[in-house]
Amino acid sequence: MNDRPSTPLLDQVIWPQDLRALKPEQLPQLADELRREVISAVGVTGGHLGSGLGVVELTTAIHYVFDTPNDKLVWDVGHQCYPHKILTGRRDRIRTLRQGGGLSGFTKRAESEYDPFGAAHSSTSISAALGFAVASKLAGKPGKGIAVIGDGAMSAGMAYEAMNNAREAGNRLIVILNDNDMSIAPPVGGLSAYLARLVSSREFLGLRDLAKRLARKLPRPLHNAARKTDEFARGMAMGGTLFEELGFYYVGPIDGHNLEQLIPVLENVRDAAEGPCLVHVVTQKGKGYAPAEAAADKYHGVQKFDVITGTQAKAPPGPPSYTAVFADALIAEAQRDSSICAITAAMPSGTGLDKFAQAFPDRSFDVGIAEQHAVTFAAGLAAQGMRPFCAIYSTFLQRAYDQVVHDVAIQNLPVRFAIDRAGLVGADGSTHAGSFDVTYLATLPNMVVMAAADEAELVHMVHTCAVHDSGPIAVRYPRGNGTGVLLPAAAEKLEIGKGRIVKDGRQVAILSLGTRLEEALRAAEALEARGLSTTVADLRFAKPLDEAMIRRLLTTHEVAVTIEEGAIGGLGAHVLTLASDLGLIDNGLKLRTMRLPDIFQDQDKPEQQYADAKLDAAAIIDTVLTALRHNSAGVATEARA
Amino acid sequence: MNDRPSTPLLDQVIWPQDLRALKPEQLPQLADELRREVISAVGVTGGHLGSGLGVVELTTAIHYVFDTPNDKLVWDVGHQCYPHKILTGRRDRIRTLRQGGGLSGFTKRAESEYDPFGAAHSSTSISAALGFAVASKLAGKPGKGIAVIGDGAMSAGMAYEAMNNAREAGNRLIVILNDNDMSIAPPVGGLSAYLARLVSSREFLGLRDLAKRLARKLPRPLHNAARKTDEFARGMAMGGTLFEELGFYYVGPIDGHNLEQLIPVLENVRDAAEGPCLVHVVTQKGKGYAPAEAAADKYHGVQKFDVITGTQAKAPPGPPSYTAVFADALIAEAQRDSSICAITAAMPSGTGLDKFAQAFPDRSFDVGIAEQHAVTFAAGLAAQGMRPFCAIYSTFLQRAYDQVVHDVAIQNLPVRFAIDRAGLVGADGSTHAGSFDVTYLATLPNMVVMAAADEAELVHMVHTCAVHDSGPIAVRYPRGNGTGVLLPAAAEKLEIGKGRIVKDGRQVAILSLGTRLEEALRAAEALEARGLSTTVADLRFAKPLDEAMIRRLLTTHEVAVTIEEGAIGGLGAHVLTLASDLGLIDNGLKLRTMRLPDIFQDQDKPEQQYADAKLDAAAIIDTVLTALRHNSAGVATEARA
Repeated sequence: MNDRPSTPLLDQVIWPQDLRALKPEQLPQLADELRREVISAVGVTGGHLGSGLGVVELTTAIHYVFDTPNDKLVWDVGHQCYPHKILTGRRDRIRTLRQGGGLSGFTKRAESEYDPFGAAHSSTSISAALGFAVASKLAGKPGKGIAVIGDGAMSAGMAYEAMNNAREAGNRLIVILNDNDMSIAPPVGGLSAYLARLVSSREFLGLRDLAKRLARKLPRPLHNAARKTDEFARGMAMGGTLFEELGFYYVGPIDGHNLEQLIPVLENVRDAAEGPCLVHVVTQKGKGYAPAEAAADKYHGVQKFDVITGTQAKAPPGPPSYTAVFADALIAEAQRDSSICAITAAMPSGTGLDKFAQAFPDRSFDVGIAEQHAVTFAAGLAAQGMRPFCAIYSTFLQRAYDQVVHDVAIQNLPVRFAIDRAGLVGADGSTHAGSFDVTYLATLPNMVVMAAADEAELVHMVHTCAVHDSGPIAVRYPRGNGTGVLLPAAAEKLEIGKGRIVKDGRQVAILSLGTRLEEALRAAEALEARGLSTTVADLRFAKPLDEAMIRRLLTTHEVAVTIEEGAIGGLGAHVLTLASDLGLIDNGLKLRTMRLPDIFQDQDKPEQQYADAKLDAAAIIDTVLTALRHNSAGVATEARA
Repeated sequence: MNDRPSTPLLDQVIWPQDLRALKPEQLPQLADELRREVISAVGVTGGHLGSGLGVVELTTAIHYVFDTPNDKLVWDVGHQCYPHKILTGRRDRIRTLRQGGGLSGFTKRAESEYDPFGAAHSSTSISAALGFAVASKLAGKPGKGIAVIGDGAMSAGMAYEAMNNAREAGNRLIVILNDNDMSIAPPVGGLSAYLARLVSSREFLGLRDLAKRLARKLPRPLHNAARKTDEFARGMAMGGTLFEELGFYYVGPIDGHNLEQLIPVLENVRDAAEGPCLVHVVTQKGKGYAPAEAAADKYHGVQKFDVITGTQAKAPPGPPSYTAVFADALIAEAQRDSSICAITAAMPSGTGLDKFAQAFPDRSFDVGIAEQHAVTFAAGLAAQGMRPFCAIYSTFLQRAYDQVVHDVAIQNLPVRFAIDRAGLVGADGSTHAGSFDVTYLATLPNMVVMAAADEAELVHMVHTCAVHDSGPIAVRYPRGNGTGVLLPAAAEKLEIGKGRIVKDGRQVAILSLGTRLEEALRAAEALEARGLSTTVADLRFAKPLDEAMIRRLLTTHEVAVTIEEGAIGGLGAHVLTLASDLGLIDNGLKLRTMRLPDIFQDQDKPEQQYADAKLDAAAIIDTVLTALRHNSAGVATEARA
């Protein structure tokens, strides 16, 4: 339904060197065609749209001015990289974005030498660019490090840590602050307010003033600017003391959609000789596509859509998402208990806390992209008697691991962790997979770690978190929709460390944690059809384990299999360790652990990812039958079926 | 040898309320006595001295002005808290600091209500104080959150994240920046240079000017200051734009050893009504004790010492520390290979990289307290062809877990992690224990995880890291001295994933990772004396495991025991998982895993900690014998002995 746009100029540009062969006055047309191509492609694939549209001119200008790939261009987060991919030899595959076997939705080293550093988590770009710059400096080779980082990403501590070290790079580091006053949600905090003041208070300087001021900073005079009119200077002013105090030359703010400004400014910055530069570029998320510009989230992440109307494909109707169930459950708890509060690190809609914030604005905290602060702030709230829920994706909680250990677990403070996007996550791929949380949390003393098998369980687990005051507790649940089970009228407090038997049997025991339960039940049905009486247990808790239930299941069944949506070191490892501690393995125990494979899996449909991971019903059946056949007595139990 | 000082005024002060009953003019004497008491106590116990001496007046002033414990005072890092402990009811136990069963060397919630938040890792205080402030605000109760944070700690990202959120607290947050131009080592980076400029460029304002300026910020006029002379104002000036841009009222810099300045400033800040305040206090580390003032490290951490001379007790002569062996080995590698470089996060002496920096100043990077940046910076260096060693303590690497996952492991970049202080660490206690690194690293695809069994092994492993270019690799080693083995003349490249048999036997197999090897050999000797032929293997690698060796040992010995200096989910869990994957447990396998217990252990002598953890030779023997007795056939193998 979406026709390919006509792109005569873009058709000549396969690589950046083709771009550099163009005349400056051709660049606006190229940018226009590039923008239409991005819209067309994302209309087919879905994905991140608004952020890419905001940097079409910036992408064009950077590749025009800098010597990529020898200069190392690092896109922070990376979800704005679709125009970049089109200009760097990947246009032919751009309509495979985020599909299985296709292009990644982020930058990726394996894809192109123009992606010198992969990203997907926020705020890594300055550190990486600094690494490139310093390495080139040490080797005595040419080459700069260029980080393009959003204003939202600037709130994360590691961006600050990197800025604090910028001087290491000499003049080889250029940070382009892409200020669109939006990350995924509007940014928060002191830095954001500061940037807004910088932009709103800018004085439009005449060219003479500008040249004079810049001359003090940039040894090479504004040779290109001299060819321009005073208009060029309208986007530039001096300011940015905060960045200057940290050791940067600050240039900006400038209009990030005006190539006549971008090109000469970047050329001058490129040729500046004295130290690291920060170029403050103001852009508009969703720029140039009316439906995106009009949308509140600027089409941050979209489904496939009709390019003419902007209408997105509707997800098929289905059960509510785990995220929505969590949000409703937490609101219900908060209505009952005024000490319950919630913290998100810049993901209000992704975690469902936007809804919570509407209901309880005073008890809702969006701290910006600042997971470390989020967790220790929650620890402080808990120490003073609040009941905080920290709602953070599994993969992003890695950012706050030390805070979980040092500020929460060691002090045994009752911080509640609501861990969304646990397990494999589909189109976002390996960088967003929630693979390690059970392992890195269950190893900690004092922690309680739960996983919800369905959305009804999640409701009970949110309640269990709410009333668990004796120490930290975590509940993990996946991306996507629930199973469609009836939600409970009243949430129940689960007994800590107790699992439940979902289906009773005698020969095969499947010990499931989390939402593999559906596959476990499917496998059980197939095993029963083969005459193998099968128990399915939902352990609910990875820590503490239900020792009594596990002991019973392991000692009364011929074969037992654990299954989890996580990597080695999690549930299966803990069950094996318990079995060893208890001496249950001494006399023979057919116990297998099914877990994520020891690789980082690329993006695909979640069900395909789990099939590839051998964590679906077919794999369970195969694991059970293989284990049963693996019998020193030589008798295949299966044969009895 | 050290006489107790005469402290007539301090003897009257058990709690802060006793302090508050004193007249302001008595406070200098109290501070003087408090300082002498700190020196006397640390002379007996050893510990952190310089940082406590630097805040004697500040501690006195805070407890004098603020309503502790209702106002929540959070000491960043906490190693400067000895004066605070003395003033808050713990003087009677101050000579048990850092001893088994004694006071912690850091703040600790379990110890006192005056320690509302434990610390030991840097830069958590603002987040925690913000949590206290917001919780009190929500509850409608009085109470402020006061964070005292050093200039070095300000370089960490989480301090910045917290500052960026300071407005949440309204006027209930007070950050006292204790600027002594030293953390453990001199601080680095842009922020440090900025603070130095603030201090060196301060204008001494007259009282009239000062009062006028402050009046704009602090609604309540300088009522106390009005009683003072112009001298009071000499320590104050306006500035601190960086902090003001982040939303703070900035007051400073002021002389942190002058109680006549500190008291009225803190009183005014306490009564300020409009928003969060940052008070910039300049102090001198080691203040008031000549040997400390004269020392390069300001007596940051000391052994027991003679108070008169400052002479510290010498450690008994012994083998070199693992840290020193690592440093020498890395220098040797760097002499051979110009691409080797090293990164520390503010721990040059603790990691041994001070020595490396002397030899290779261009290839040595101290990034400040900024572990996140350290790791991603290293990833950037590696992506550009350098061979970076990130030398970070096990417990502090937790700060950079996401960077290890997202920037290093997913991209399979050859960053080398030199993980010092692995396992239990003695006097620093639970906050500094390196208990989790094997678990949180070995769960990651692409990672190679080694542990050195002795200092000769460490030399080989440093070389193995240096030449391993295909992906990330880590080597862990403990605090303290090596075993005294001869260091190898030439470092060897170890085969990845291959262990070694240290002692060959037939019945009992001890599979050791790391420096428990000595205890394993001791246990083996005792077992042999009981007639049990014992194999001792040093696995060397937690990942990848030596599958062939493990299979052979498990299938040819009657009982096998793994032992490691880490928590559940590490080596033992991986060996059990392998044994399960291979079906080795199907027909009976006496396999036990010895690991750290599921508690956070308090400080004590390391050997006592390991005895408590049941990870010494006696515990190995006990585990083996118990497993042997646990025999369904009813035949105690041991009886054969």
